[in-house]
Amino acid sequence: MSDRPYPTSQTEAEQFDAADPIAHARSRFDLPEGSVYLVGHSLGPPPRTALRHLQQTAGQDWATELVGSWNQADWINFPARLGARLARLIGADPSEVTVCDSVSVNLFKMVGALIQDSPQTQTILVESGEFPTDQYILERLAQMTDARFLRSDPGRSTDHLAPGVILVRSLVDYRTGAIAPVAKIESQARQVGAEIVWDLSHATGVLDLTLSDWDVRYAVGCTYKYLNGGPGAHAFLYVASDHIDTLHTPIAGWLGHARPFAFDPHYDPAQGVQRFVAGTPPILSMASLSGALDAFEGLDLADVQNKAQTLGDMCLNAFARLGLSSVSPPIGQARGGHVSFDHPDGYAISRALAESGCQTDFRTPSTARFGLSPLFLRYQDVWQALEQLQTILETESFRATRFSVRHTVT
Amino acid sequence: MSDRPYPTSQTEAEQFDAADPIAHARSRFDLPEGSVYLVGHSLGPPPRTALRHLQQTAGQDWATELVGSWNQADWINFPARLGARLARLIGADPSEVTVCDSVSVNLFKMVGALIQDSPQTQTILVESGEFPTDQYILERLAQMTDARFLRSDPGRSTDHLAPGVILVRSLVDYRTGAIAPVAKIESQARQVGAEIVWDLSHATGVLDLTLSDWDVRYAVGCTYKYLNGGPGAHAFLYVASDHIDTLHTPIAGWLGHARPFAFDPHYDPAQGVQRFVAGTPPILSMASLSGALDAFEGLDLADVQNKAQTLGDMCLNAFARLGLSSVSPPIGQARGGHVSFDHPDGYAISRALAESGCQTDFRTPSTARFGLSPLFLRYQDVWQALEQLQTILETESFRATRFSVRHTVT
Repeated sequence: MSDRPYPTSQTEAEQFDAADPIAHARSRFDLPEGSVYLVGHSLGPPPRTALRHLQQTAGQDWATELVGSWNQADWINFPARLGARLARLIGADPSEVTVCDSVSVNLFKMVGALIQDSPQTQTILVESGEFPTDQYILERLAQMTDARFLRSDPGRSTDHLAPGVILVRSLVDYRTGAIAPVAKIESQARQVGAEIVWDLSHATGVLDLTLSDWDVRYAVGCTYKYLNGGPGAHAFLYVASDHIDTLHTPIAGWLGHARPFAFDPHYDPAQGVQRFVAGTPPILSMASLSGALDAFEGLDLADVQNKAQTLGDMCLNAFARLGLSSVSPPIGQARGGHVSFDHPDGYAISRALAESGCQTDFRTPSTARFGLSPLFLRYQDVWQALEQLQTILETESFRATRFSVRHTVT
Repeated sequence: MSDRPYPTSQTEAEQFDAADPIAHARSRFDLPEGSVYLVGHSLGPPPRTALRHLQQTAGQDWATELVGSWNQADWINFPARLGARLARLIGADPSEVTVCDSVSVNLFKMVGALIQDSPQTQTILVESGEFPTDQYILERLAQMTDARFLRSDPGRSTDHLAPGVILVRSLVDYRTGAIAPVAKIESQARQVGAEIVWDLSHATGVLDLTLSDWDVRYAVGCTYKYLNGGPGAHAFLYVASDHIDTLHTPIAGWLGHARPFAFDPHYDPAQGVQRFVAGTPPILSMASLSGALDAFEGLDLADVQNKAQTLGDMCLNAFARLGLSSVSPPIGQARGGHVSFDHPDGYAISRALAESGCQTDFRTPSTARFGLSPLFLRYQDVWQALEQLQTILETESFRATRFSVRHTVT
């Protein structure tokens, strides 16, 4: 466990809530009554402002102003506007971020651009434990180009950093929650002439990311987890300003053109990272994300990170007390916003928790995950979930639901 | 002009409305009072059901059921479900269509797959007058692969059909509205061993498309024009069932995997066209499109096409009477849902029409377009717009606004 203090009783949990500098953010959400939602690392709940922006965009801008909203409501600059607002949350300059497409598509564009713009043959490197879609995208991209593809053992990717290597790596591991040592890996890459593309999907909105300070050059990430942008909300793409001018997206769509409405038959990339926008983005989903970013206004990401890691300490302490083994790092500073435990009946336990009003998620074969989204979860909520977990384990009530639920997970 | 009868007076326009077999579809929209919206070829207005599905998905499924909606509301199968419903509107089998990403991204995937799966060097062929994003995407894709890139003169692409050629062509030209002779071009391609990828963006939802009957193998298209799916709504992708098994998308995202939640590190493509889904799609925008498709329930696309072409005949007759030159085909059967005229003061005329309550759109340098979306426009609405056009031209009222508006179009 870390040295950070954390609540060890219901009373202490309430005291932590009373002292929580971001406690007021909870009122920005309209959460279902009587449930504890520990799946914000998968799909964040709607901030009130997300639903409001969506309603405004659909019911007013689209329904009343119709096509005129591309200019009047500035839909055309949504990727740049959202990128500029998101930049604060990842420690980047507003000009370095755009919001468009999915993480899969953005990763393809990002690594594809790095391969295309390099005179030498590149090697795409990924760990075998990396989030699967990243592995699929990269292996297929290598087949399409003349790049080599190298899949390293988990945690061993840095052994293979070398000139011409492009490593794609999650900043926070989707199973364990472990944070990669970003600045150290970037420094190592710089020394040998490798490049790193970070996948920030499980990190953004829960950690105090400082990409510029860490000398990060390239990153992609998702907005529907801790950023609460809405189901399948658009992903983002970041390129450090010193490195954008020579990069060219492989998917040269018209909204990445310098003058999309000139209808020029020849492609001329837009200034900066906006050249990575491809086709026309689904605006209604962007409106929801825009409103969701309002829920971060005035919050210090250092407070957000501290709360997530303190909640994690509290959970890991309880897991240990209950005899559950965890693959999550014991030290708070080494973890993102989720913690997990392994149990042969992990799925049944997760279902029993849901029946008691505490939603968690489950990853095959045996991992139950607690997502500790700091904006809307109180210490007392998570304490309540841990008490439910204790009751379920002590009474073995999960065994009753075991068989019936197994069918739904495949 | 075609032989099809069309209204030549206000009274006749009202008679056509009275006899219109799809007149009832107008009540499926909640249009702004007192305006005639002739820009449905660019952004369709919201069907009431689109706003309702969106509200249900955001306010209920997301806000209340949260992450559970991926299964309970079957979000996970949205691409397949929407594709199956859209199939009827393009004359395809429900298994042959998926809905995801933008037209730009889908075109990249579609042509990229054809290049990758071919043992011989391919030539990507496109006309110089083709919609710009298609040209950008294809030229860049050729740079990325070992494909050749050939840009033909407008209307001359079929001269270059040869073994190993992949022609991308719009079924309806975005400026003139001209329909390409699909079945004839497909037959010609078959004879020489070329492939055609159709861009159906300006055709879907306004023409009675019969892809299977025309022996079409590959197509992409957009859903925010005549399908009224919402701003930037997702695009679709069609592959004839006989040709899907050997095709592999270059963007191998997890939602195109046969078992996305098995978290297998190796990619195994889903059955059928669903393998072309890449990352997690923005669900809120999909909900809007789902509701928009409801507005087509019970409508015969032959009636929709007939109305659009009759409205076009009416417009072209008026344009000719007013001395306006049009680049649109005079015969209704040869046209999609929009007609256009050229005038050196085209933009000022378009603005003057807007001030009189009739919205049209404008394409540089001098083309004003009338989009004749048959589900919500009445014959009398379009007649009213033509009368306004006549008044504007006769009084030259557009000259007053000419200078002030020029600045806004760049």
